[in-house]
Amino acid sequence: MKAEIVTIGTEIILGSISNSNATYISKRLAELGIETLYHTSVDDDFKRLKDVIEIATKRVDLIITTGGLGPTDDDLTKEAIASALDLPMESDLNMEENLKHFFAYSERPMTLNNLKQAMKPLGSEFILNSKGTAPGIYIKKENKKIIMLPGPPKEMIPMFDNYVTNLVKDDQIVMVKSINTIGIGESQLETDLKELEISIDGFVISTYASKGCVEIKVIGKSKDNSYLEDNFKTIIEKITSKIGKNIYSFNNSSIEKVIIDILSNNNLKIGVAESCTGGNLSSRLTSIPGASNTFDRGIITYSNESKIEELGVNKQSLIEYSAVSEQVAKEMALGLLSKPNIDIAISTTGNAGPTSINNGPVGLIYTCIASKEEHKVYKRIFSGDREVVQERATNFALSNLYEFLNK
Amino acid sequence: MKAEIVTIGTEIILGSISNSNATYISKRLAELGIETLYHTSVDDDFKRLKDVIEIATKRVDLIITTGGLGPTDDDLTKEAIASALDLPMESDLNMEENLKHFFAYSERPMTLNNLKQAMKPLGSEFILNSKGTAPGIYIKKENKKIIMLPGPPKEMIPMFDNYVTNLVKDDQIVMVKSINTIGIGESQLETDLKELEISIDGFVISTYASKGCVEIKVIGKSKDNSYLEDNFKTIIEKITSKIGKNIYSFNNSSIEKVIIDILSNNNLKIGVAESCTGGNLSSRLTSIPGASNTFDRGIITYSNESKIEELGVNKQSLIEYSAVSEQVAKEMALGLLSKPNIDIAISTTGNAGPTSINNGPVGLIYTCIASKEEHKVYKRIFSGDREVVQERATNFALSNLYEFLNK
Repeated sequence: MKAEIVTIGTEIILGSISNSNATYISKRLAELGIETLYHTSVDDDFKRLKDVIEIATKRVDLIITTGGLGPTDDDLTKEAIASALDLPMESDLNMEENLKHFFAYSERPMTLNNLKQAMKPLGSEFILNSKGTAPGIYIKKENKKIIMLPGPPKEMIPMFDNYVTNLVKDDQIVMVKSINTIGIGESQLETDLKELEISIDGFVISTYASKGCVEIKVIGKSKDNSYLEDNFKTIIEKITSKIGKNIYSFNNSSIEKVIIDILSNNNLKIGVAESCTGGNLSSRLTSIPGASNTFDRGIITYSNESKIEELGVNKQSLIEYSAVSEQVAKEMALGLLSKPNIDIAISTTGNAGPTSINNGPVGLIYTCIASKEEHKVYKRIFSGDREVVQERATNFALSNLYEFLNK
Repeated sequence: MKAEIVTIGTEIILGSISNSNATYISKRLAELGIETLYHTSVDDDFKRLKDVIEIATKRVDLIITTGGLGPTDDDLTKEAIASALDLPMESDLNMEENLKHFFAYSERPMTLNNLKQAMKPLGSEFILNSKGTAPGIYIKKENKKIIMLPGPPKEMIPMFDNYVTNLVKDDQIVMVKSINTIGIGESQLETDLKELEISIDGFVISTYASKGCVEIKVIGKSKDNSYLEDNFKTIIEKITSKIGKNIYSFNNSSIEKVIIDILSNNNLKIGVAESCTGGNLSSRLTSIPGASNTFDRGIITYSNESKIEELGVNKQSLIEYSAVSEQVAKEMALGLLSKPNIDIAISTTGNAGPTSINNGPVGLIYTCIASKEEHKVYKRIFSGDREVVQERATNFALSNLYEFLNK
């Protein structure tokens, strides 16, 4: 199957945003064994978009579009594609009802243009959007498949992963398994994998770094299910024997999800004391459903006064060692641990930048993890701008917390 | 002049690298008053590339390509474009000499395929590459301009900036202005803008929603600078008179940046008390450089006990009204405000989901903002999964905080 990816939006064409959707989709299609031949971007113009789709239908079998599915007048992807394919538009009554419920539930007025979202080309199917209001659309017409996805990556990526992979696969069985690692860099991991010399027909192994973790993705493609399963078993055994201690999940869980599960299963309450990470660490942990079973409280102490008042940090330590020090990281964690209900406390303190307001260079981070039995301080210097340092410091803290809990 | 950018290379089509060239070139063209209508990416395949160029010549006046100009066999941009334009290839004697000198000077052997770099379509001109060996090429044929640039951004960008701008500029000036709004949905905003009936030659107004805010982008194009400036003034006045209270910036600042600036300029210290947003609100505020001047502390009270212990929430209120209530939102904010150093306190409490663990439906959010003079509670019900509700609740809190500070 040959594919074209059509990304729609004035902001792409004007260069205001980079076209990350085309990059993501091509990569995922390649993994599924589908060759992308063209990327096309066009603005939200009915005639141009229609022409682009007509050209695409002549040269590929699969067209995936992103963007232009919202409720406003310049969202006209559905209409232009319906016109290119000579299909009339129909309103989906179920979707109309859903939209009415949605607005009634959130106690907001529904404007008329919101009803546009219930319209679709005749014979097409809606694809559920779990992250926003604009549904995707799937059309199959004369051996051509056309799939329309929303523009925001936060909505597009889950929709692609959950639904589109099944719509595009051909008669081969494609199996994808993930091995999630932490505490090992992507280059080192790649070297380790090369040393295993895994070379099996129909199998591809690749790595993706994200948020301080590296995912090893193994993709197998064959018409024979047992061939796939046998080889997956072998590959996973080989990888596990080599880097087992760095593997934290086999199902693409985030590290924060795994941590919350460990804490919940052991009936442990966690408290977070943050300085440089400014709420980012708490936010990552509390984003996990069920976090409230184990996340007790977080104290973000940005000022020295608040470190003293909220966590009982010694004023003398702040003067003697500065706020960015092993000593203060330790006192923050131990201060939090001394509060009722906390079994594990983790602290962060550092210079997120852009300028160093305390001791040490920009990017210097200390994190301390404390339980009733012991405490441990970790230190690292990160580079990058403020946001990058905050994110890396959070990843570093999570990585240490996982290690601490798994001892 | 209408443009198409054609980026050539298997690595783009496979999603191995992002297409930063198209983004860069469109942005620069927009500044030069040239409208980009299409981006196309295709791999290094003679037939497909030739077809892409043939389509492009029919729909635009200016084609800029990147990639495929090197000496190897799969570099065939020049040949494919010459074929699409029906031009023979010729060898440029000066360039041949230059190449020979270049290799002699650098004491490297010149292979035969290096001579490929002296070939160009008949009648075209070379463009100097100050950062590499592959020159660019400029062709003008029947009112169409075709410019071929090398693929590596390190070579492409200086070539674009130093030579291409002069080859492509026409006599129009383009100006872009942003108006950033908060507290008004994109659909409502569009309806409001329509009511203003702004229709001025050369001007386009569009809206972009992101993180709870909507940017209004006004683009004006004309040969006459004062025509542009006068009309921008009129348009901005009209929009301001209609939705002035929702405008928080004219220079694309984030709402958290504007809030941190207001607080800093007024020498106010802020404290954040979060429940359902779990650190997300603090994290957004502390991501701004200089936040430490005004952000004093954040207290994330997930458990009822921590609400009582850290913020002095009344136990009876939690029993009587539940943690998700106007009363508890108020007590959280006032409890934080009573601590030393805090001038403004903001609280959030709600059901982020997936299940309702307190009173009321999933998505129900209360936020309270308190200063020494007054306090105000805001209520909203959001839909979406846990992460979406947390993000929307954070946007809602920021929007209210901005309004509170601007009264």
